[in-house]
Amino acid sequence: VRAHGPVDIKAIIGQMLAMGDEGHNRNRAGTLMFLRDLLPHLLDCGLPSADVAEVARFIGGNDHFFLNLVMPAGKLQTQAGAGIAGSTVVTAMARNGTDFGIQVSGTGDTWFTGPAAVPDGLFLGRYGPDDANPDIGDSAITETAGLGGFAMAGAPAIVRFVGGSVSDALRTTREMYEITVAENPAYALPILDFRGSPTGIDVTLVLRTGVLPQINTGIAGRVAGTGQVGAGLVNPPLECFVTALDALAAAAPAAIGG
Amino acid sequence: VRAHGPVDIKAIIGQMLAMGDEGHNRNRAGTLMFLRDLLPHLLDCGLPSADVAEVARFIGGNDHFFLNLVMPAGKLQTQAGAGIAGSTVVTAMARNGTDFGIQVSGTGDTWFTGPAAVPDGLFLGRYGPDDANPDIGDSAITETAGLGGFAMAGAPAIVRFVGGSVSDALRTTREMYEITVAENPAYALPILDFRGSPTGIDVTLVLRTGVLPQINTGIAGRVAGTGQVGAGLVNPPLECFVTALDALAAAAPAAIGG
Repeated sequence: VRAHGPVDIKAIIGQMLAMGDEGHNRNRAGTLMFLRDLLPHLLDCGLPSADVAEVARFIGGNDHFFLNLVMPAGKLQTQAGAGIAGSTVVTAMARNGTDFGIQVSGTGDTWFTGPAAVPDGLFLGRYGPDDANPDIGDSAITETAGLGGFAMAGAPAIVRFVGGSVSDALRTTREMYEITVAENPAYALPILDFRGSPTGIDVTLVLRTGVLPQINTGIAGRVAGTGQVGAGLVNPPLECFVTALDALAAAAPAAIGG
Repeated sequence: VRAHGPVDIKAIIGQMLAMGDEGHNRNRAGTLMFLRDLLPHLLDCGLPSADVAEVARFIGGNDHFFLNLVMPAGKLQTQAGAGIAGSTVVTAMARNGTDFGIQVSGTGDTWFTGPAAVPDGLFLGRYGPDDANPDIGDSAITETAGLGGFAMAGAPAIVRFVGGSVSDALRTTREMYEITVAENPAYALPILDFRGSPTGIDVTLVLRTGVLPQINTGIAGRVAGTGQVGAGLVNPPLECFVTALDALAAAAPAAIGG
């Protein structure tokens, strides 16, 4: 990375959305572009060829590798909008296997929580719904940043991994425009005539429309140590948004119109 | 390649169609998958790191690299259907800058030709329509194999390279089903609910419907030595199909119903 110079993750994410990835459960093109960009520099470092080959096999062998970079990119993006008085935009969504929590710009570090749901999806090998733990992990930062479930229209093949139909994937992205404040031109979705990905979940729009953010996610096993048992679709509980709005109204009544 | 073993080009093409490539003017994902698969083996060969880095930069620096493998794969695929008595399926389309020619299964090596049109498209740098040569090259073997213009629905971003709109790209693939005899399950298009790419142009269907095969193509400069000046959309002349049907009817009247 030092030899290459800064890696423009935002540019890679922009490209991957035109290549069938949504940046949460499909990161195949992103992983390949990252490998393409870094590998020549790794080769120039004078390391033993066998070590470089092992790195190339490791990264190339895991289509999800680039998720490790999409998530922090999403965190940096959403944090840039954190702490703005009166802002009703969601800056984080995360789950710990029991609770689902959101943070909102106008209320800083406060978490608004509700019970985590069990994702509905497809299961690996012999696993089934009985093996699934309620929603867990911090990867929903991708949806918070307009990726994952919000960008599913650009990744129709993902329905073979998380379930649902291709028309559901298109409809989901279109619905997310109803609850977001902006379209991100850097994350254009060619299939929607290059419309920018729906970005910036607005607590008030969620409550007015009743449309919940759509999250694509891995499904963890309910027995500790099992690891991933599948992947599917899940939503936050509505009460996160209700309690967030109450707190926003209390913190800045004029801004919320309360 | 010897260290890797045979490269399954058909499998890579199948994947790239789910990653925004149509295999003629977009080969970005295909190029990256080819590089990912071969590079570890190249590293194991004991060549100087600087040479391997140069290979990685060369392949990684040209998003069209994989076209060099899609074209022969298309040729092998279509040739497998050549020389079948009475068959009205097109086995080759090619252009030499003056004439456009097709070969048909039931008539062997005979070319049926008409005047090559000038592609309508987008131009590089300062080039414009006056710099364009009539259609030239053998890359339309990709369309003959159900790729390129036939698979445009899976590559909506290509309209920024060849012109037209995203809805045109979807409509084009749907129209190509009207003139083809099969849908290739190995080349599934996720956006069309994983329908197989339209494959096997039938001379009789072209003439019954009046729908001409759609080709995405590079545009060559009309002055020799200029190279590529743009990329666009072009069709074969109808008369290729008229004269082909006459010859098919003469060769196997019972099979053609003539």
